[in-house]
Amino acid sequence: MLIHPDRLFPVEPAAREVARRLYVEIRDLPIISPHGHTDPRWYAENEPFPDPATLFVIPDHYIFRMLYSQGVRLEDLGIPLKDGSAVERDPRTIWRRFAAHYHFFRGTPTRAWLDHTFATLFGFTERLTSANADAYYDRIDEALRTPEFLPRALFERFRIEAIATTESPLDSLKHHETLRQSGWKGRVVTAYRPDPVVDPEFECFRQNLARFGEITGCDTSTWSGYLEAHRKRRAFFREYGATSTDHGHPTAQTANLSQADAEALFRRVSTESASPEDGELFRAQMLTEMAAMSVEDGMVLQIHPGSFRNHNEALFRRFGRDMGADIPSQTDYVRALKPLLDRFGNEPNLTVIVFTLDETSYSRELAPLAGHYPALKLGPAWWFFDAPEGMRRFRELTTETAGFYNTVGFNDDTRAYLSIPARHDVARRVDCAYLANLVATHRLDEDEAHEVAYDLAYRLAKEAYKL
Amino acid sequence: MLIHPDRLFPVEPAAREVARRLYVEIRDLPIISPHGHTDPRWYAENEPFPDPATLFVIPDHYIFRMLYSQGVRLEDLGIPLKDGSAVERDPRTIWRRFAAHYHFFRGTPTRAWLDHTFATLFGFTERLTSANADAYYDRIDEALRTPEFLPRALFERFRIEAIATTESPLDSLKHHETLRQSGWKGRVVTAYRPDPVVDPEFECFRQNLARFGEITGCDTSTWSGYLEAHRKRRAFFREYGATSTDHGHPTAQTANLSQADAEALFRRVSTESASPEDGELFRAQMLTEMAAMSVEDGMVLQIHPGSFRNHNEALFRRFGRDMGADIPSQTDYVRALKPLLDRFGNEPNLTVIVFTLDETSYSRELAPLAGHYPALKLGPAWWFFDAPEGMRRFRELTTETAGFYNTVGFNDDTRAYLSIPARHDVARRVDCAYLANLVATHRLDEDEAHEVAYDLAYRLAKEAYKL
Amino acid sequence: MLIHPDRLFPVEPAAREVARRLYVEIRDLPIISPHGHTDPRWYAENEPFPDPATLFVIPDHYIFRMLYSQGVRLEDLGIPLKDGSAVERDPRTIWRRFAAHYHFFRGTPTRAWLDHTFATLFGFTERLTSANADAYYDRIDEALRTPEFLPRALFERFRIEAIATTESPLDSLKHHETLRQSGWKGRVVTAYRPDPVVDPEFECFRQNLARFGEITGCDTSTWSGYLEAHRKRRAFFREYGATSTDHGHPTAQTANLSQADAEALFRRVSTESASPEDGELFRAQMLTEMAAMSVEDGMVLQIHPGSFRNHNEALFRRFGRDMGADIPSQTDYVRALKPLLDRFGNEPNLTVIVFTLDETSYSRELAPLAGHYPALKLGPAWWFFDAPEGMRRFRELTTETAGFYNTVGFNDDTRAYLSIPARHDVARRVDCAYLANLVATHRLDEDEAHEVAYDLAYRLAKEAYKL
Repeated sequence: MLIHPDRLFPVEPAAREVARRLYVEIRDLPIISPHGHTDPRWYAENEPFPDPATLFVIPDHYIFRMLYSQGVRLEDLGIPLKDGSAVERDPRTIWRRFAAHYHFFRGTPTRAWLDHTFATLFGFTERLTSANADAYYDRIDEALRTPEFLPRALFERFRIEAIATTESPLDSLKHHETLRQSGWKGRVVTAYRPDPVVDPEFECFRQNLARFGEITGCDTSTWSGYLEAHRKRRAFFREYGATSTDHGHPTAQTANLSQADAEALFRRVSTESASPEDGELFRAQMLTEMAAMSVEDGMVLQIHPGSFRNHNEALFRRFGRDMGADIPSQTDYVRALKPLLDRFGNEPNLTVIVFTLDETSYSRELAPLAGHYPALKLGPAWWFFDAPEGMRRFRELTTETAGFYNTVGFNDDTRAYLSIPARHDVARRVDCAYLANLVATHRLDEDEAHEVAYDLAYRLAKEAYKL
Repeated sequence: MLIHPDRLFPVEPAAREVARRLYVEIRDLPIISPHGHTDPRWYAENEPFPDPATLFVIPDHYIFRMLYSQGVRLEDLGIPLKDGSAVERDPRTIWRRFAAHYHFFRGTPTRAWLDHTFATLFGFTERLTSANADAYYDRIDEALRTPEFLPRALFERFRIEAIATTESPLDSLKHHETLRQSGWKGRVVTAYRPDPVVDPEFECFRQNLARFGEITGCDTSTWSGYLEAHRKRRAFFREYGATSTDHGHPTAQTANLSQADAEALFRRVSTESASPEDGELFRAQMLTEMAAMSVEDGMVLQIHPGSFRNHNEALFRRFGRDMGADIPSQTDYVRALKPLLDRFGNEPNLTVIVFTLDETSYSRELAPLAGHYPALKLGPAWWFFDAPEGMRRFRELTTETAGFYNTVGFNDDTRAYLSIPARHDVARRVDCAYLANLVATHRLDEDEAHEVAYDLAYRLAKEAYKL
Repeated sequence: MLIHPDRLFPVEPAAREVARRLYVEIRDLPIISPHGHTDPRWYAENEPFPDPATLFVIPDHYIFRMLYSQGVRLEDLGIPLKDGSAVERDPRTIWRRFAAHYHFFRGTPTRAWLDHTFATLFGFTERLTSANADAYYDRIDEALRTPEFLPRALFERFRIEAIATTESPLDSLKHHETLRQSGWKGRVVTAYRPDPVVDPEFECFRQNLARFGEITGCDTSTWSGYLEAHRKRRAFFREYGATSTDHGHPTAQTANLSQADAEALFRRVSTESASPEDGELFRAQMLTEMAAMSVEDGMVLQIHPGSFRNHNEALFRRFGRDMGADIPSQTDYVRALKPLLDRFGNEPNLTVIVFTLDETSYSRELAPLAGHYPALKLGPAWWFFDAPEGMRRFRELTTETAGFYNTVGFNDDTRAYLSIPARHDVARRVDCAYLANLVATHRLDEDEAHEVAYDLAYRLAKEAYKL
């Protein structure tokens, strides 16, 4: 049996019983996926997914970073090089390589997501090995050609009530437009991720600004025109369902400059190559500007800070971004968020959702901040911590100070479409296990635990993200 | 049933049995409360407590910070504004608001303390809800008017053997004087908390220095007179039972300046508006001076560092201090404490008790320091961490390096008088659970666990604080 | 019974059964001890160990730091003073003092290691107390005079397949030479620990450089001659079995200077008293140089950073190094290791093993780095964290991101020879408990857990260290 019905539940039988009772009530709730990176083209075009390797291995940095760390070359996994040099092209060969190294994933969430997908979507009952790699490949490959595996069919099978994709302000949202005109009922919304026009250190930042002006008809060479462009583009995104913005900065720094200082800063970063200090300050100021716009237009502001991107320089040169070499680093929130919170922290109608890659901030900074400021909520365990132990630590380290109701349910944050049910299932199970332990140690009544389980699995995400 | 007899014990039956056996032996031990913030007036005047809202909701920043984070206005909870503007005055209305939001406290220690108090003092068996809010209010209100609920009667009912309050050197200790003359046997001692005359950034610091001179008859415009004033005032506090001093600084920084440098620094901070650097250095030097006096007079030195006070500027302007907006921040101990430890760390007769709001320091810095320096001991899990998971982390992260005997038992650190038994009970249960787990995994013999449980619940606090 | 057969296993019976099944298969595997500090003289000369106090108490900083923290003077434990002043000389008196304070070690790994040693080597069944201190002393003292307790006999009894000692480049390796000529089959290898000639702040650094030149016949007054001396000495160490180098720096900083800058830096540190900045930069550059040599000669590079050495100044002046006053401090890896990783992180044939005393880096930095870079592996829980809770945290905080196969099994890292089986046994039990929990929560199949348990107990250390 590839997945066990009691997986992730407490080991002690009485507590396990509680977890089962909690879980069975929320297991089949619809999925709210308010933050993720699936491709809107899939839903718009509804074309079959390609072969197993192209679906599972080549685009998944969780998978190829682990294989790379164990000496497998990215070329041999079919990852394209920037210079177009030859890489492995045969999906079956790639799949076999992956299968031969499947034991490296023992104890990781990747393993849990894959086994869940293999079992529930493709009916496998045996663990993937070198020996059954071809059988796996053939069965998946065959399934992918059937109508049941088209993106929209999976959407319905996954019981997705709403899913957000993530687009740059420079994106035309053409797939979302296609979707809107298609008459299909699946709710796929966009989200506003303006890093390419907000981060002066982003590739081609100044060209991006110019393009941003063309798209919006605003004069993005001035501070006021630039802000106006954001306002217009946010409104355009809202037409395609967007309820949130998202910001992936190296730090959580915010700023609250005077009008004059902000203008002068914008002039510098938009006309010269920005100094690192100016880059940091501009991103910081823009978080506060985005909060100001959110107070006006009601969009939820998400901050995803603390990743040192592209740490492996040689790999970055050869393969580009998102090659599994983004490494968390220490992140301060207490001082960093103060300028934004001084201005908007007490706004009852603003929601700022903060994520972290520095777990030390959970109990020391984030829970105390979210347990006080009306505008602040905690995003779920993120990225490297989107896994059973990481999720458990999130609850153990935040609940006693911030409770459950300053958190916002689960985000799958994934581009791996087929893993979405698995990820939500892990989150639901881990939360039920956590709640069962509170019940079994008489810290929470079981009737309350049922209510909280429902809130964490469904209601909080829906409400926090206004979906 | 509002509180379960096995709450907080291990879930596994055999380990739970061990915890029960440990707990039953220490459950009824007297309470030593060596550090807290109850009002000495209560014991001195022995007047009835007012209504339920004024007793439970209005003064408790744990409660109103959570409600505030969920959008309840402080005005609607009866919290007074600095400018005297109107706030909710009806205690029953405030109580109903609190009851309506009681679910926000699920999973928090506030919930556990309140339920324990509601059950053991007022005999409630049903969870507080909107539906029973009035019934709760009426029963508590009625009880508070009976002699059994006067402060001294509760003191005896709580089996408090000794409790410390906390006063500023500028306090006259008149309530302690009244107490002394009253003939009542309850042991209520003061503690010396000199922040108002030690922290150059404290409100009215320079006026405080002048007042300090008047009270002590010392020339507090000179360094030597200022130090002499401390010596005299410490002696005065000792007459009222004080065995400890306490210092709430933003960092744990200590310093060991030459006489001349200390004099020059004192001149600057006492005559000019201090720079932040001078403020920090003066506080740092004063910790070392306080340690020097402790070596002379035997008072225990407590350091409570690492809180960023009054983080919410708008709230601070409108409501003042202690509004639930104090946020922990990263705190270094290894370098910060070195100047003090270089001078006094090897003193066999000095006890410095260090607390932290940065849990990362438990295993990395504090346990290694306390497991080496004779003068250093670890205070218990503090403030946001005075809760089951926080206490468990404290033991798991410190015991393997520092053992049990470099810790000092429990502090309730509270101004919520009625919660004192609940807080000590949580600490005793969590320690018994921790010990039961050591016994069940055969890391400690059960006879030893009984001894340690007694030490953690009673003996260590009594001895460390010389009470 | 002094040690229980189920110690450290999960409490829940079903999970405990799994742990037992895993453990029984690996319990008797040979010991690979790839990093430690036993004295090669013991194996070379094979003389009896002296009395119990000199064997167990006087050289063990885990023991005397705890006793010192509780007010026992180091002089009274027979620790020699630098000025040769009188200290306690009677081993029985020292032993009695230790026995009288044995309860201070409750909950610590020292207690577990000692009880294991007392039970398995000397047949004790009662806990050490003041009452049985003499009986303990006599039995141990007697045993130490028998042939079964000679170092080589113990080596075989302990089933040590290979053990590494640690020597400075200035060491003649004469004991290793004696060993080689002795014909004894026990595999004792050296390891290259060049801190005395790499750290400009090491005592007598410049004299050490001169001596390094004499020993190697290289001109260590020039950068190229100095590097050549390392190459030669590494080759010499390899003749005595060395497969690794080790570096105990205050930080993990690495550097990648140009040839000219490195030469200029070497000139400064080798001719003047180095500034702290130059000291740090030189150590940083040397880690990268050592990595370059490892790429050539295949030696594994170990980095043990983050200890603030000799924190207690007075004690350091009176007793010297290694007096239990080394305190961990916050350690960055993301930026610190980048220069080295930029140059060698993608080398398939290099192994860099990183250790930490800052547990916050496990999930935030080290697991993400090791889960990506082919050249990087994580060393086990180290020093203060070489204990059940520390080891559990290591697995819980690293496995979900880095898996099991970017870790390298266990290091005992000890100079306490008799504790080696106890330490490996603790590591094996804790890993089996961790795996049993994964199995019991259906995150890992039991057949896989058996394989991983074998890998963690034996194969990974053997392979990573090429032993």
